[in-house]
Amino acid sequence: MAKRMIPDIVIGRLPVYLRALGFLIAEGRQITSSQELGDRLGISSAQIRKDLSHFGEFGKQGTGYDINFLYEQLRTILKVNKMWDVVLVGAGNLGKAIADYGGFKGKGFHIQAIFDNKEDKVGKPMGIDNLVVQPTSELGETIKSRGIMVGIIATPAEEAQAVARTMVDAGVKAILNYAPITLTVPSNVRVQYIDPVVGLQRMTYYLPEK
Amino acid sequence: MAKRMIPDIVIGRLPVYLRALGFLIAEGRQITSSQELGDRLGISSAQIRKDLSHFGEFGKQGTGYDINFLYEQLRTILKVNKMWDVVLVGAGNLGKAIADYGGFKGKGFHIQAIFDNKEDKVGKPMGIDNLVVQPTSELGETIKSRGIMVGIIATPAEEAQAVARTMVDAGVKAILNYAPITLTVPSNVRVQYIDPVVGLQRMTYYLPEK
Repeated sequence: MAKRMIPDIVIGRLPVYLRALGFLIAEGRQITSSQELGDRLGISSAQIRKDLSHFGEFGKQGTGYDINFLYEQLRTILKVNKMWDVVLVGAGNLGKAIADYGGFKGKGFHIQAIFDNKEDKVGKPMGIDNLVVQPTSELGETIKSRGIMVGIIATPAEEAQAVARTMVDAGVKAILNYAPITLTVPSNVRVQYIDPVVGLQRMTYYLPEK
Repeated sequence: MAKRMIPDIVIGRLPVYLRALGFLIAEGRQITSSQELGDRLGISSAQIRKDLSHFGEFGKQGTGYDINFLYEQLRTILKVNKMWDVVLVGAGNLGKAIADYGGFKGKGFHIQAIFDNKEDKVGKPMGIDNLVVQPTSELGETIKSRGIMVGIIATPAEEAQAVARTMVDAGVKAILNYAPITLTVPSNVRVQYIDPVVGLQRMTYYLPEK
């Protein structure tokens, strides 16, 4: 209903706000302002107030935002106040780094199964949960049997589209893709890309000419 | 002068456009439209036209954009039509994946030196260029002597701030940070964060409740 009318670009900024609020909580802070958040994030305070106003009234003029309250509200809006099961495909260096990353669990995500199609990876334990890497041939069945909706692709580019298709056919609705290709998926499936080049290129604009 | 007035959020979208144009070129395409780009990227065509209009007139009403021309123009605007030397700090699984990534060179970046402070990493060759990992104690001197302005941090969170300080003191002006902390840097230094949690969290909003 109403939530369909909120622009995706606004939704895209909420995790950034959530992240900043998490750091403020870690610093022991209790109150912040759109001005402070904006300064930290390089976003105007007006933009932050406008984004948050889509979802209700979170702060009072002059007193700022209660950090814990806003943090919990954003977690609820983004549905990361619950735990999403995740499949990870690709057990190379990148997959290993992702499986070792401790930051998913506190943020709403739990990698439940890891897949690779290389014999030297399959059957070995990996990551913070010591998950035994399964052959990629078991990917679809695992997703279906556990009702998993979130997938991470950390395969070489040439394998990523086939993996995405298997994920989608089995029921995945959200894919985080590290492979440097654009995935073709049905319109009801979301894809986010992790691309270091995009991050680097948006900074060079500001660098002095060599 | 004029370029200072272009919002950072617009600059931030240009690498995404560049990336999409690169894929179109790889597909052998020659002409595209703001509508097609928008559909591929989930951005409105009006937004794309408005963003590009900051930099000049790139397409004609009704005939669309010449893909190669727009690609080269964006590369020039973002200053990635030249090669930027990059230092990488962190030679763990993530650092290895970054050093192995073949996608930097064609996009304006060349990792020139890799650093780690662990004895079992230092002195060993790594990545597509077989760079010998140097001790992190040599980071500042390497940056200074080669005039390097771009750094990538792939260290554990607790080491990242010290690495950033060394980078900045030696002359780095743009940092791509994979470590899950907010870096404190002078206002003339840019930081971009690579955070898989942000990518995942912006998709769960759209997922059906479990």
